[in-house]
Amino acid sequence: MPDEYYMEMALALAEDAADNGEIPVGALVVCRNRIIAKSRNQTEQLVDVTAHAELMAITSAAHYLGSKYLPDCTLYVTLEPCVMCAGALFWAQLGRLVIGASDPKRGYSRFGSALLHPKTRLETGVLAEESQALLMKFFNRLRT
Amino acid sequence: MPDEYYMEMALALAEDAADNGEIPVGALVVCRNRIIAKSRNQTEQLVDVTAHAELMAITSAAHYLGSKYLPDCTLYVTLEPCVMCAGALFWAQLGRLVIGASDPKRGYSRFGSALLHPKTRLETGVLAEESQALLMKFFNRLRT
Repeated sequence: MPDEYYMEMALALAEDAADNGEIPVGALVVCRNRIIAKSRNQTEQLVDVTAHAELMAITSAAHYLGSKYLPDCTLYVTLEPCVMCAGALFWAQLGRLVIGASDPKRGYSRFGSALLHPKTRLETGVLAEESQALLMKFFNRLRT
Repeated sequence: MPDEYYMEMALALAEDAADNGEIPVGALVVCRNRIIAKSRNQTEQLVDVTAHAELMAITSAAHYLGSKYLPDCTLYVTLEPCVMCAGALFWAQLGRLVIGASDPKRGYSRFGSALLHPKTRLETGVLAEESQALLMKFFNRLRT
């Protein structure tokens, strides 16, 4: 399936986050054409700054595979990962990372591409506008 | 209590990690002179690259306090945090970070001090030799 197909699903997870008062970020992990993990931001609900979509997706995927490492996996995430999540993706030796919108303020890439594992292939800007629109809608609603 | 007192306890947690086949890293969180979280590396046991001592200590401390943020807390950790854990400490707005041994290869500081929150006060090198000795003993045992 094309990247857009999975990113649409990640966007639906992000919308679910927004509906529950969370910053809308969704993630899923695909391994050999099978979705093995789905998650969305839960920092408010779990009262835990580490409950980002990517971190929970990595944990779920590792449990599913029975392996700490994810070299044959693609992680789709609607927003550029933060430093914490990029660090986790490094440890997981993720095979491929597909990002929706960029995050100039809190994204990992401010610190350079070396935060990701050298073997992680990177794709950016997939359904970026849709993800950005979801984030803007969420923050605009917070302000009113 | 002096920093060395708490770091001794973190070193005991690191030893417990080593005894269970984990890279020996221990952490604890102190808030208003009370220890509110203790943890040690569990990546092998939990089959999860995110199960670093610091990440679990942050989650535990947040649950104890009922708050995502830890501005009045000090985290003691026997080894310099990695990028992932530094990113988590940033989000937690940690008040103070006390580090044992430095980690030139995987420590966050390769990417500069901006990975930590600007309000996090930093102390390094507390019982560094003891922590380093524990790590060397662990890796030497692995090699034989």
